[in-house]
Amino acid sequence: MANRVREVALKHFCVEVLCKVGVPHDEAALIVDNLIEADLRGVESHGVVRFPIYVERLSVGVMNPRPRIRTLRETATSAVVDGDNGMGQLVGVRAMELAIEKGRRGACAFVAVRNSNHYGAAAYYAEMALPHEMIGFSFTIGGINHMTPWGGAEAILGNNPFAVAIPAGEEPPVVLDMACSVAARGKIIVAAKEGTPIPADWTVGPDGRPTTDPVEALKGFVQPVGGAKGYALTLTIGLLSSMLSGAYFGSEVTHMYEDFEHPQNIGHLFGVIPVGLFEEPAQFRQRMDKAIREVRGVRRAPGVERIYLPGERERLSAAERRRDGVPLAASVLAELQELGGRYGIPLDGL
Amino acid sequence: MANRVREVALKHFCVEVLCKVGVPHDEAALIVDNLIEADLRGVESHGVVRFPIYVERLSVGVMNPRPRIRTLRETATSAVVDGDNGMGQLVGVRAMELAIEKGRRGACAFVAVRNSNHYGAAAYYAEMALPHEMIGFSFTIGGINHMTPWGGAEAILGNNPFAVAIPAGEEPPVVLDMACSVAARGKIIVAAKEGTPIPADWTVGPDGRPTTDPVEALKGFVQPVGGAKGYALTLTIGLLSSMLSGAYFGSEVTHMYEDFEHPQNIGHLFGVIPVGLFEEPAQFRQRMDKAIREVRGVRRAPGVERIYLPGERERLSAAERRRDGVPLAASVLAELQELGGRYGIPLDGL
Repeated sequence: MANRVREVALKHFCVEVLCKVGVPHDEAALIVDNLIEADLRGVESHGVVRFPIYVERLSVGVMNPRPRIRTLRETATSAVVDGDNGMGQLVGVRAMELAIEKGRRGACAFVAVRNSNHYGAAAYYAEMALPHEMIGFSFTIGGINHMTPWGGAEAILGNNPFAVAIPAGEEPPVVLDMACSVAARGKIIVAAKEGTPIPADWTVGPDGRPTTDPVEALKGFVQPVGGAKGYALTLTIGLLSSMLSGAYFGSEVTHMYEDFEHPQNIGHLFGVIPVGLFEEPAQFRQRMDKAIREVRGVRRAPGVERIYLPGERERLSAAERRRDGVPLAASVLAELQELGGRYGIPLDGL
Repeated sequence: MANRVREVALKHFCVEVLCKVGVPHDEAALIVDNLIEADLRGVESHGVVRFPIYVERLSVGVMNPRPRIRTLRETATSAVVDGDNGMGQLVGVRAMELAIEKGRRGACAFVAVRNSNHYGAAAYYAEMALPHEMIGFSFTIGGINHMTPWGGAEAILGNNPFAVAIPAGEEPPVVLDMACSVAARGKIIVAAKEGTPIPADWTVGPDGRPTTDPVEALKGFVQPVGGAKGYALTLTIGLLSSMLSGAYFGSEVTHMYEDFEHPQNIGHLFGVIPVGLFEEPAQFRQRMDKAIREVRGVRRAPGVERIYLPGERERLSAAERRRDGVPLAASVLAELQELGGRYGIPLDGL
């Protein structure tokens, strides 16, 4: 991946393109901040690799560039938010802000969302809770069905991701962000764009047999992590993300890359646990720091240089990429430049 | 597993033995109901296979047979409970009851627990929320450290389990209950007692190499599901279970089977999301039933007879075992009979 683009230039480009398809500037900036954060962290599968499909969906009107996001039901501890078919990155931030507001007023709170879209990296929302000394939760149903119930041969489940962010003191927070497959489908998309083979345990092809060809893999089924465990987990996250709000589930979920007629009605669930309801925050922070240091300092297996906490590799990547630029695969760069050509926005910063 | 014992007889036996080591009768009945439910469901790893160690810990006084369980801090949406070193099955039920009470008063609520002990099967607590039309959550830190941070060679993490229970309407609820290893250590204990080999991907021995010998495996490290994902998950569940309440974490956690001097100070976290805060319960139930039926009715892979929802195998097992008796491995039966001999309680119902 030889092409590196400066963060600022990449963000500027994406914001300008979003504005061209009708997104208000401030909201475009918020969405792009969220999107590029994934690239910075090395989670390329949820970064600008998705930008062309987002722009296409906005431009044909199957996603709403100017949503009127509304709170439909609300208590001190709960809310249901209707995203009005806006981009998931915008709807997600608004909904998580609402959960945090309830947390600041002293409640463990959950906000269920409907009529949203693909929201990118789950961790972004969970981490919003951290500066407020809350544990943050983020669940979503995926934008494509490409997993099967365990024993099934029909993709009616998304590879549904979730994130949990736990604040610490002097140490960085612990941030779990995982989907339920052996590998994210986004990684297969990246491999297909780059023309590189994938490990045989990531997927089965449409014939049910393992494949290392990412193009074939994209026609088949993504394999759940731990077999039946990953199936149970993705099903549970899907139900948590959709059942409380009335978002789509199962075969109702249309294909983000193939259906440009029907809004997706994607659901999310966000949650906060304010630490201060349970414990003096200073005490909690000390306890977290101690736990993190013990994990990091554990005796290492032969050949292992360093123990990483969940979320640590992503922070290290972000620091490096903020400094040296975001590496883009040649095919991703070409797609962005093609998009720039169409909308008359040059991609600088290379 | 040729020896089957009637549920009623097995429960009676266990209650009588617990009473002999100082547990009040009503509390013993509650604890045993919880314990035997695991055997009924086919989760032998968390059933009576653990009974001898529980009795031993009670009899030497490292677990408290008559705890005074106290609520230390409390709001409408949160509580911290001190289990006074009581059995996890008792402390867990009391704490989950408190979360449900808060849910009935209209809050999403979490209850963090400290000074508890091994609580058995996580699903039992999450399922307590179901009759109240709540989604239930149950997290705990394990009672033995036998997992390593990813890349580590020192067991400072438990194989921490969690459960999520989601109510439905005419269909049975969806109940996820999983730990973070490829296989539960309890299954290795069962295999060791039965003298049967285990799959090579379950563990590495103390030398870091895969082993199929369950006795060797018990000296080594349990492998996380999905590699780094399982590590991140078990760490996160461990932190959720201990940091809010001040329960032990990491090397503070003593070995349930080896340390009979120091109370374990095990932590749990329980949570409820009352459905009615978000949606008309009837509407939610219909939506869940539709989702469950779609999963069950999906096209099946060749050779697959039936698609199971999470928790369904366990319910089918429980129905069968309530009728035909609980199968016990010969070694487990022998241990129970030895225990019965010591306390003068015969095990009938064989």
